[in-house]
Amino acid sequence: MKPQAARIAKTDKPRVVILGGGFAGIELAKALRHAPVQIVLIDRQNFHTFQPLLYQVATAGVEPSSIIYPFRKIFDDDSNFFFRMADAICVDTANRILETSIGYIHYDFLVVATGATTNFYGNEQIQSKAIPIKAIEDVLALRNTILTNFEKALQIQDEQQLNSLMDFVIVGGGPTGVEIAGALSELRKHVFPKDYPELNFVNMDIHLIQSGSQLLKGMSNEASAEAKAILEKAGVKLWMNCRVKSYDGLIVKLDTGESLCTRTLIWAAGVTGKVIEGFPASVVAPGNRLKVDACNRVEGYSNIFAIGDIAAMVTPENPEGYAMMAQPAIQQGKWLGKNIKRLLAGEALQPFRYNDQGSMATIGRNKAVADLKIFGHTYKTQGFKAWFVWMFVHLISLIGFRNRLIVFINWMWSYFTYDTGIRLIIGKKKENVPVEEVTEKTMV
Amino acid sequence: MKPQAARIAKTDKPRVVILGGGFAGIELAKALRHAPVQIVLIDRQNFHTFQPLLYQVATAGVEPSSIIYPFRKIFDDDSNFFFRMADAICVDTANRILETSIGYIHYDFLVVATGATTNFYGNEQIQSKAIPIKAIEDVLALRNTILTNFEKALQIQDEQQLNSLMDFVIVGGGPTGVEIAGALSELRKHVFPKDYPELNFVNMDIHLIQSGSQLLKGMSNEASAEAKAILEKAGVKLWMNCRVKSYDGLIVKLDTGESLCTRTLIWAAGVTGKVIEGFPASVVAPGNRLKVDACNRVEGYSNIFAIGDIAAMVTPENPEGYAMMAQPAIQQGKWLGKNIKRLLAGEALQPFRYNDQGSMATIGRNKAVADLKIFGHTYKTQGFKAWFVWMFVHLISLIGFRNRLIVFINWMWSYFTYDTGIRLIIGKKKENVPVEEVTEKTMV
Repeated sequence: MKPQAARIAKTDKPRVVILGGGFAGIELAKALRHAPVQIVLIDRQNFHTFQPLLYQVATAGVEPSSIIYPFRKIFDDDSNFFFRMADAICVDTANRILETSIGYIHYDFLVVATGATTNFYGNEQIQSKAIPIKAIEDVLALRNTILTNFEKALQIQDEQQLNSLMDFVIVGGGPTGVEIAGALSELRKHVFPKDYPELNFVNMDIHLIQSGSQLLKGMSNEASAEAKAILEKAGVKLWMNCRVKSYDGLIVKLDTGESLCTRTLIWAAGVTGKVIEGFPASVVAPGNRLKVDACNRVEGYSNIFAIGDIAAMVTPENPEGYAMMAQPAIQQGKWLGKNIKRLLAGEALQPFRYNDQGSMATIGRNKAVADLKIFGHTYKTQGFKAWFVWMFVHLISLIGFRNRLIVFINWMWSYFTYDTGIRLIIGKKKENVPVEEVTEKTMV
Repeated sequence: MKPQAARIAKTDKPRVVILGGGFAGIELAKALRHAPVQIVLIDRQNFHTFQPLLYQVATAGVEPSSIIYPFRKIFDDDSNFFFRMADAICVDTANRILETSIGYIHYDFLVVATGATTNFYGNEQIQSKAIPIKAIEDVLALRNTILTNFEKALQIQDEQQLNSLMDFVIVGGGPTGVEIAGALSELRKHVFPKDYPELNFVNMDIHLIQSGSQLLKGMSNEASAEAKAILEKAGVKLWMNCRVKSYDGLIVKLDTGESLCTRTLIWAAGVTGKVIEGFPASVVAPGNRLKVDACNRVEGYSNIFAIGDIAAMVTPENPEGYAMMAQPAIQQGKWLGKNIKRLLAGEALQPFRYNDQGSMATIGRNKAVADLKIFGHTYKTQGFKAWFVWMFVHLISLIGFRNRLIVFINWMWSYFTYDTGIRLIIGKKKENVPVEEVTEKTMV
């Protein structure tokens, strides 16, 4: 433990330290707004990220600032809210102390809401060369990489080199993989050929690799089949029942023996938890999540909770815990807020009840699939209706009226002009293998 | 010279290579849209930057994507337009070849429109420690630095350390310096105290250092005096007739013998040209600009032109060339477009005529100064009217309807809510001296 303490005013209220400002952490902090507690939110960034729209930043559809929102602005009016931008290092559960990069912080209640991180399944080579879709920096790097590839492709004659720059391989057939494949094929159809009339976009291949036999696993068979049909019609090359064995920055080797050539491997193959140091191995569930009881208490602790992706709450319907998605996180955050208030009032905790509202994914213009659950009934819908519902739900879920308005304008703009606004190269990009092998043939 | 050539299709039209896509370069390319030439625009970025609003990105007022615009999108419909993202290295005027980072490029006409760069007056220490306000990366770094400073300040008790984080020193009393001082004082008044209720913003000092005896040199005495009065009223500390001698990342030493403590030195003290290699020293004017005749021809060349900040066009009224500002650049770009068309038609070139429309600067909410020149008359206006005109002129000058709409929404939003939306820390920041000296006093 470092000898110094983080400076946070000590109040006479019990201190709830929330580790992570994702969906779960934010909802919990909101729920505790007027509770007799001191809320201390710790996050390594100063903003909340609306992860479901990250792929749209990657594909130049919306501004990063429209889908992220400063924590301090959300809680401007709450005098019991304290934010600290810091990395968590470890927890000393015996002394109720959290060690962070800005010093140690005492807690009365600790809520671990650290979410999930990209799962590279232990492959360090892929981890160093692929681009994940998990944080705003990832998707900005992806946007920069895609656009830089085309700028470079203009100088290339060699066919394999050209393919390496113009082809994209997406790994993972879940919502993120499907949505990014759909968005890239829209760009290939409507936007890139106008931007780069010198390039032949017949050469741009979009590959989607899925380990299982269907896309959007967890959704209905109808949704999976429709997603597959839409992507195939859009010219996305689907590789089902297939896994990536290795990637050296240029060649993707598949376990089927085939290989693909790309400088841009987009990794949306899954997520995993990452438990902060200080917990015994016995509370860590498969998938690196924290075992919690039905009230989100971490096994063996009365004052430590876990919510959202990091919490493995096993139920008869969910033997591996709830899906690592926004809805369970949001609902657990809200629920724990009520439970902490009950605890302070000396009442008994209530076990979490999940209200499954279904799931959906958008695949392109006017095209989406949705399995909506309304009052216990499942409505399966595809096409324009699903697309409209998807847009509506995501729009109202954004934090802040200004963000909703600006995303709405961007969407309407794209819809009517067949254009996306934000094809800008700013900041870092992923450059695996430098393209210095420009051909010698001169065209001056 | 590198042995390889950049790949740009050779057409039967004469090739006009425009070096730099600032105001001058863009206007020239637009003017040549339907001319019988091949336009090749070279820029190191893939977007045009609307520099007059850079300070608003730094102060979290607008998104970067609202004030920058992809070149390819501007010229989507122009089949004679070719863009290449590249750095220019040098020019071989004898062989009409431009060497760039992507290979050499032959030209029939070369137009140097490389603009200006921040002038550190040869002080390398200041150059390495200060933050300039010239490119989108600069202002994003400044935004990140300002916000990170406050996050760090929360952990600091020591008074000098606190000042170093919360105080800002701006060097240069031109429009950029004045505008950024005004914007920071607005943030200090309306935004930061709500975001950081734990910090005492009486401790936040904004210093503006000006080498001369008046602000906004080049504008009317009324405008200068009013700008001074507004800033003083807003609590900005003005240091007139004063220069920075040194800055080590913490202490700013002034030539008056005094010193200021800050981790953030904002450098808006002036700009200078930077002439590409390959020109003889005889064509370089003071301020590192290219000497041009009244038709923007670089001295001694019939097929090389310079426009905008890099061009030193000496006239009786402007013995040092036109001011390095947007208006002369825009007008020279348009004018040269017409002149190149005349050249191709075998007509005589027409000498540039500048239409001075005046100048203005905004200093805060409802506060601006403007010297407007309309049909030869000068109208001096201050306060709300000038502020309104400033907003209107800048809004219509942005490229793209979407950008105008989004900036308009951001401005209206800020105006009515006293808030600015984009207080996000993403990417690089300037960290001169690490703040590891957190006090030992515990407040757990």
